[in-house]
Amino acid sequence: MLDQSTICAISTPPGIGGIAIIRLSGKEAIQIAEKIFQSPASDKKLADQRANTLHFGTIKSGDILIDEVVVSLFKAPHSFTGEDIVEISCHGSVYIQQMILQLLISNGARLARPGEFTQRAFLNGKMDLSQAEAVADLIASGNAAAHKLAISQMRGGFSREINQLRTELLRFAALVELELDFSEEDVEFADRSALIELSTRIATLLKKLTESFRLGNVIKNGIPVAIIGETNVGKSTLLNALLNEEKAIVSDIHGTTRDVIEDVINIGGTLFRFSDTAGIRETTDLIESMGIERSYNQLEKAEIVLLVTDISGPIQPLLDRIVKIREKITGQQLIIIANKVDIASVDSQNQLSEFPLLQNEKLVFIAAKSRANLDELIQMMKRAVDFDSIGPEEIIVSNVRHYEALTLAFSAIEKVIDGLKTGISGDFLAQDIRECLHYLGEITGEVSTDEILGHIFKHFCIGK
Amino acid sequence: MLDQSTICAISTPPGIGGIAIIRLSGKEAIQIAEKIFQSPASDKKLADQRANTLHFGTIKSGDILIDEVVVSLFKAPHSFTGEDIVEISCHGSVYIQQMILQLLISNGARLARPGEFTQRAFLNGKMDLSQAEAVADLIASGNAAAHKLAISQMRGGFSREINQLRTELLRFAALVELELDFSEEDVEFADRSALIELSTRIATLLKKLTESFRLGNVIKNGIPVAIIGETNVGKSTLLNALLNEEKAIVSDIHGTTRDVIEDVINIGGTLFRFSDTAGIRETTDLIESMGIERSYNQLEKAEIVLLVTDISGPIQPLLDRIVKIREKITGQQLIIIANKVDIASVDSQNQLSEFPLLQNEKLVFIAAKSRANLDELIQMMKRAVDFDSIGPEEIIVSNVRHYEALTLAFSAIEKVIDGLKTGISGDFLAQDIRECLHYLGEITGEVSTDEILGHIFKHFCIGK
Repeated sequence: MLDQSTICAISTPPGIGGIAIIRLSGKEAIQIAEKIFQSPASDKKLADQRANTLHFGTIKSGDILIDEVVVSLFKAPHSFTGEDIVEISCHGSVYIQQMILQLLISNGARLARPGEFTQRAFLNGKMDLSQAEAVADLIASGNAAAHKLAISQMRGGFSREINQLRTELLRFAALVELELDFSEEDVEFADRSALIELSTRIATLLKKLTESFRLGNVIKNGIPVAIIGETNVGKSTLLNALLNEEKAIVSDIHGTTRDVIEDVINIGGTLFRFSDTAGIRETTDLIESMGIERSYNQLEKAEIVLLVTDISGPIQPLLDRIVKIREKITGQQLIIIANKVDIASVDSQNQLSEFPLLQNEKLVFIAAKSRANLDELIQMMKRAVDFDSIGPEEIIVSNVRHYEALTLAFSAIEKVIDGLKTGISGDFLAQDIRECLHYLGEITGEVSTDEILGHIFKHFCIGK
Repeated sequence: MLDQSTICAISTPPGIGGIAIIRLSGKEAIQIAEKIFQSPASDKKLADQRANTLHFGTIKSGDILIDEVVVSLFKAPHSFTGEDIVEISCHGSVYIQQMILQLLISNGARLARPGEFTQRAFLNGKMDLSQAEAVADLIASGNAAAHKLAISQMRGGFSREINQLRTELLRFAALVELELDFSEEDVEFADRSALIELSTRIATLLKKLTESFRLGNVIKNGIPVAIIGETNVGKSTLLNALLNEEKAIVSDIHGTTRDVIEDVINIGGTLFRFSDTAGIRETTDLIESMGIERSYNQLEKAEIVLLVTDISGPIQPLLDRIVKIREKITGQQLIIIANKVDIASVDSQNQLSEFPLLQNEKLVFIAAKSRANLDELIQMMKRAVDFDSIGPEEIIVSNVRHYEALTLAFSAIEKVIDGLKTGISGDFLAQDIRECLHYLGEITGEVSTDEILGHIFKHFCIGK
């Protein structure tokens, strides 16, 4: 499965910078680097230098000087990929980066595919598959919570959990299969009730992991927030105000940029995914025409619902509408936003605050246009999803591939439990247990195919 | 002038990538890195590790694991800045980069200003000022010719030339000043005719260097090309065709991107700067109204003039116009483009080809719309400015600050020559020589002020 070619790629972000790194990994990494690199300080060949050392020198293409560089030397197996690695740190000109890359290729290296360095780390046993996947998550992580999940997974936290489950299942399988060997004699090595207890415990753990995916997905992809409300109550103004507020709030973290999708906003390190306003406008129409049932699907995907109201108008119809909508919201965190507080009467404000049916609801008075009280709203939204409460050892599944494998493993273990209860034969039991083991093995890569690997690593950046 | 603080910055291009480098330089670089870095392999402190070594470990913020990193250790004075340098190679997540940067700052480093690492290299005597400036040029270089100038300058080629001139001038100054010491006795140590010869030689060299700036500027900023011609002859179509052609031609050099200015095009590694079409349209009007004198200023800045004509119409008035315009073009390379060849009569083509007054002109038949023969035009344009003919040792001035200093130095040496010829007193001679020395000293930074340095380094990227 592991090809023996030497691969190279620019590993730093694309573009111009002070420094760029070109990474070279494989059996011939050092020999290829040797062909284009010269050190003024030493006649020693790179291959004869100690591992984990730095060497200043020049890169030449024939007689043409390309750059002055620093070369980092890592030797197999003590490197990221487990192979010899040479990293060339050059001036961050795009032209120089390309010239060096072309030189390496013309001297026998080939351009690495996306994620190929990490793939080699996996194939050389430096990390398991879920750890390799965490490398990509770590690089993509844009906030504290996503970073925490990714680094814990990269360090093997999730793998340990899966391996514990596998160990228990393997013991289980051994008992059942031992029984099969002696099936002629009709003995029962495995105590059926103990087996049921064990498989139920495994099922509970798998269930817990699959259920954690909802949170993991939210952490990784942003907290879905639905902004609902009639037209002209200030939904767009609010969204724009939040967009701008973000700049003020995250200004101490330079470069924490918004996602390409317009409505994903990083507010103080927490990612919020605002649902499409077009959909919300439709939703609003439906609410107005009392067709709220159909808009409910939209709301169901949200973790937080921001119900925006304009309290500068008549208050009684507004209260009626709020109550109607509130009834339709069950699992989500509802925040009622009383907008245009700056032009609303004190009487309206009091009526809303003191309305008995809303006493247990979160209510915030704002003026989106002038940004009055936006900070209170943001704090409310952040409190609505408290990532900090996740324990340091708690395992949260955030990868959809893992979620699917866990779901399949859970189905398999449920079949085992059913089988034990209905007393099916050891053959079938063993088969279901093997199936469960297979899916768990897919997560860590004990079981893997080229197809799975190809699918995983194609989403990596080149150079990692 | 050199402050003692420890500075840090992200040195790799901004954004997400496989690897990012955070660079730390200064007296406390190692101690500050020590506070947040832990190696699992060694209890030894970083400060006790050998210089030029690599160390794998973790970066922690209190108990929170930020990343697994590789640290490069350089010790003063054997580093880029001449100070202790620690480079932290982390996963290229923007979040991680910012976290590490904030950690370094909260542990006593401060954010580096643009170019501050290179500025320290200059202040610590690792390079002179023209070499430091070449670092920025090298990073910005986007083609072979600009790269060649920048790397030669960074390696000290230009500095050697300037220093030779300074040495000669200093010898000259010494002779004149010795004379001044003995002025009571009315002796003449310095032979006036030998002095005239020496200063004339220096003047010639300075003249040659200032004159090279035209070429240097063209290499660095692109070859100015004026596209002229009446409306509807296909100027825009030609420019668009060249823009598209470029993609095909430079596709083997990924990332060689066009400048932000719309009309700077990198064609096969050569930068062409097409002059503003708005101006050309005005020029065209003026040509039509025979007001060609005023448009001449536009043309004068160009190295190449592309005269676009439509040969699908009547040929005689076209020939008359071409001849008139040709007379106005002196220093520039003129290329006459006969466009719309696909719908022109063979007779028109022949008349143009065989027109006696144009026998020594470059003429190319194209059809811009279908891109027919565009490649021939591009080859013609590339031959018009032959950068490859620049000798390996030839010094080309490409920096406007150097050009200005050389121009002032040249004026000063001219005053010296005049003074020698008119027999002015040694005092005045010495003063003019000192002035010449001063301007040459500004180039290499023998003479420098905070203002000059501030101006130079503010154009660098942060992290270099």
